[in-house]
Amino acid sequence: MDQLAPGDLPLDITRFDIEEAAERIAPHIRRTPVAELEAGGLGVPGTLALKLEQLQHTGSFKPRGAFNRMLTADIDESGVLAASGGNFGLAVAYAAMRLGHRSEIFVPETSTPLKIERIRGYGADVHVVPGFYSDAYEACEERAYYTGAAFLHAYDQPAVVAGQGTLGRELAEQLPTLDTVIVAVGGAGLIGGIATWFADDVRVVGVEPSNAPTLHAALQANEPVDVEVSGVAADALGARKVGRIGFGVARRFVDQVVLVPDEAIVEARQALWDELRIAVEPGAAATVAALTSEGYVPRADERVALILCGGNADPADLA
Amino acid sequence: MDQLAPGDLPLDITRFDIEEAAERIAPHIRRTPVAELEAGGLGVPGTLALKLEQLQHTGSFKPRGAFNRMLTADIDESGVLAASGGNFGLAVAYAAMRLGHRSEIFVPETSTPLKIERIRGYGADVHVVPGFYSDAYEACEERAYYTGAAFLHAYDQPAVVAGQGTLGRELAEQLPTLDTVIVAVGGAGLIGGIATWFADDVRVVGVEPSNAPTLHAALQANEPVDVEVSGVAADALGARKVGRIGFGVARRFVDQVVLVPDEAIVEARQALWDELRIAVEPGAAATVAALTSEGYVPRADERVALILCGGNADPADLA
Repeated sequence: MDQLAPGDLPLDITRFDIEEAAERIAPHIRRTPVAELEAGGLGVPGTLALKLEQLQHTGSFKPRGAFNRMLTADIDESGVLAASGGNFGLAVAYAAMRLGHRSEIFVPETSTPLKIERIRGYGADVHVVPGFYSDAYEACEERAYYTGAAFLHAYDQPAVVAGQGTLGRELAEQLPTLDTVIVAVGGAGLIGGIATWFADDVRVVGVEPSNAPTLHAALQANEPVDVEVSGVAADALGARKVGRIGFGVARRFVDQVVLVPDEAIVEARQALWDELRIAVEPGAAATVAALTSEGYVPRADERVALILCGGNADPADLA
Repeated sequence: MDQLAPGDLPLDITRFDIEEAAERIAPHIRRTPVAELEAGGLGVPGTLALKLEQLQHTGSFKPRGAFNRMLTADIDESGVLAASGGNFGLAVAYAAMRLGHRSEIFVPETSTPLKIERIRGYGADVHVVPGFYSDAYEACEERAYYTGAAFLHAYDQPAVVAGQGTLGRELAEQLPTLDTVIVAVGGAGLIGGIATWFADDVRVVGVEPSNAPTLHAALQANEPVDVEVSGVAADALGARKVGRIGFGVARRFVDQVVLVPDEAIVEARQALWDELRIAVEPGAAATVAALTSEGYVPRADERVALILCGGNADPADLA
């Protein structure tokens, strides 16, 4: 049950782990397309490319890590467990359905009925736990000890981070001459995987809502620390503390972490719709906000990729 | 003013015209990406690829033809004219703005205030004409005679059709081993360009709402005929009669025209959102409906591309 003690996990994910993960999960995930914009597109310097990962199964990048973890774990008839009322819960339920495993997902009672319904729609047993995410997580841990089901951590297991890293590998194949990639950060599983892949070859910039600066705070404190989180992107980027794996990678390979206010995220999400008919969740739009708020300013000839990591938000307010 | 007498227009657009158009408009349009789905994606046989043309400037394919026409026309300070309260009006206003031309757009009073506002937002003089589209078209024609401004037809001018054909050329580059392409039909400008490009190399299938069967009726009558149009996709596919250019091409190079009911279009639009977080207009979703309604049934190993030709609809009802 090493999954339950992140402190004991090895810090090192290698490119080789990502190579293996990519081959392993290839039959199950979509190779999502890249939209290359005209110079000056979205009103920012540089030439932007958008990795349209919101088109992934379940509407976010999370199935990459979920499939890789399930395909490397020893899973018996007790199946898999995860705590998440959001994108990771959807991904685990979906991957379990595809691979023929039983799944139990623990969600806090604050989760929206729509998301709970979608998780159930993939065949998961959903446990709605009174209280907040930490309560759902604890209940999930307890259940894992009891049943022996394989526990999947949303961002702090090597196989999960290696799976998310396949997004970096795929992007590098699609855009071999990239200068910079901008990635939104919640628990740092995605940026951990992507920065492991790109290492020193491509500049990796993290972006967090000012209201959820987990990686920013961790880098300042030189260790993962708890922060208060809130705001428009909290559903996807609202981990209270980054994982140890992502932190270790980020300390070495992430060039900077940009903080963006909620208003900039909302405006960026609207701009993606107005100029491109792309509907994403606020967490994904944060990458655009990093540029439009001038938290990161590319050179005029810089080739910048933004990861649009999810589309699980109601598009009703965009039109 | 040969543009005003479609009967006098040459029927032949060639691949060479499309090659030239592609080079001409390249600085102004987006090369839109293709999403390749897993076998069985969207619940239909075959392997689907989606050409994400809703990401084009102004949210539809129409700027391709508008730019090509403007870049080959003799345009003085009286500028350009078009009649359209929809995607073509947006495209002409946008292209005129980019190229520094004056533009006047004639829209029927039935147009939505939101679209009129967006057309104005690109700097066009918008004339709201009492009555229906035909009234706006007549007012536009009259104005063209009076001012000598260059008239742009939404689908029945050679330069417009050649411009739309660049979408076929681009798709062929992106998917060199395609078997079949499915295209929604309004005035037949897009399918005319695409079928000219693919000729006998790739099967071209048209799709129309049962409530707007303009090409279907024309092929039966062996000439363009007026039909009554209505339904959920009438804003984009609601031309009352196909153009002579598109008709001539379709007669030779379009394999079949599938009719789909409105309910199938609505369901297909929802499926694109549910399974892919793609938000399109009903006219674009008609291509998916051609498959889900089994109007066209691909073989299990068939490689089918669908043109998602526009995204200009309110996404509020999707979530």
